[in-house]
Amino acid sequence: MIHYPVHLNKLIEVLKRLPGVGTKSAERFAFHMLSWPDDYLQEMGEVIAGVVNQIQICNTCGCLTNQNQPCSFCHLDLRDSHIICLVASPRDVFAIERTREYKGLYHVLGGLLSPIEGRGPEVLALHRLIDRLEKHAITEIVIALDATLEGDATALYLKQALGRDHLNISRLAFGLPLGSSLDYVDGDTLARALSGRNSF
Amino acid sequence: MIHYPVHLNKLIEVLKRLPGVGTKSAERFAFHMLSWPDDYLQEMGEVIAGVVNQIQICNTCGCLTNQNQPCSFCHLDLRDSHIICLVASPRDVFAIERTREYKGLYHVLGGLLSPIEGRGPEVLALHRLIDRLEKHAITEIVIALDATLEGDATALYLKQALGRDHLNISRLAFGLPLGSSLDYVDGDTLARALSGRNSF
Repeated sequence: MIHYPVHLNKLIEVLKRLPGVGTKSAERFAFHMLSWPDDYLQEMGEVIAGVVNQIQICNTCGCLTNQNQPCSFCHLDLRDSHIICLVASPRDVFAIERTREYKGLYHVLGGLLSPIEGRGPEVLALHRLIDRLEKHAITEIVIALDATLEGDATALYLKQALGRDHLNISRLAFGLPLGSSLDYVDGDTLARALSGRNSF
Repeated sequence: MIHYPVHLNKLIEVLKRLPGVGTKSAERFAFHMLSWPDDYLQEMGEVIAGVVNQIQICNTCGCLTNQNQPCSFCHLDLRDSHIICLVASPRDVFAIERTREYKGLYHVLGGLLSPIEGRGPEVLALHRLIDRLEKHAITEIVIALDATLEGDATALYLKQALGRDHLNISRLAFGLPLGSSLDYVDGDTLARALSGRNSF
């Protein structure tokens, strides 16, 4: 066993915690970092350690925020407070914002149901969502979850758990991704696109 | 433009400095890191900032070392001091050590000649190497450089610059990588393997 300097081993170990990074990639990153100027290393170290204090989860909706509570997505005077969008993770909020198609509130569920991985309805913390539905005069819920088995299961569960007479519950449309060629679209997607066809 | 929290943007920017990491990968890393426990983030930050003080370049050979000067690869009582191996970067030293086939000294050149990228003979800092050749009773030089155009050019230059009567200069062998199938070996490699064939 050839020994790298102790600290280089530590650096490789921490880099391996990044998703999809194994020993080879971590070594590549680490040796590249050794050629960086000192201030790059110091800045990166400070930024990473600073995440602990500088990025917060909004207590209301579960989105990310700079230490402001509640976050900018919860500002009732800037957002349409009659509609709420349910997403699995804070990252999804930014994906939806980028479309500029939605101006309502958000609610981050924090996960999807997955009986196989032991995640039952308690992961969704629905009482927090139900409190918000009652507090605001919400009339529409948009379910924006992954088009996966877990996403489907969670969407069905949410529909049953939240269904009220006055609530309009919708889910993102399924179909062909824009720019796709029929040759390359998988059969399940094509089937959903067919069954969900729109008059034209 | 959708704004991530300020600090999240900073995190993505510093992660993009890693080799081969673009915006998408950096975002993936960053959002994954947000789910880490605080001590993971703090530890990673400290390890990265600590590289500045904890990993040194040996003043003698140019290899990496924990603050010891000279480094463990320069210990004359542990290594064969009649033979010196020339490599381009500190990383190569560890690759050669892993083979357990070499017990001599090392000298890290710090780069390869590349007229296209403007790297001339001054990057090799040959005076340092020549000092070492004279100081120790070196009788053999092993040139262990990449099998690339730059590696070839640098090896040729080194042979001319260092050639002395009593010095035996060799370069790593070219040929089939072990485990390779002739079908998949490129033509240049096969040609070198043919011209360098050994009696068997």
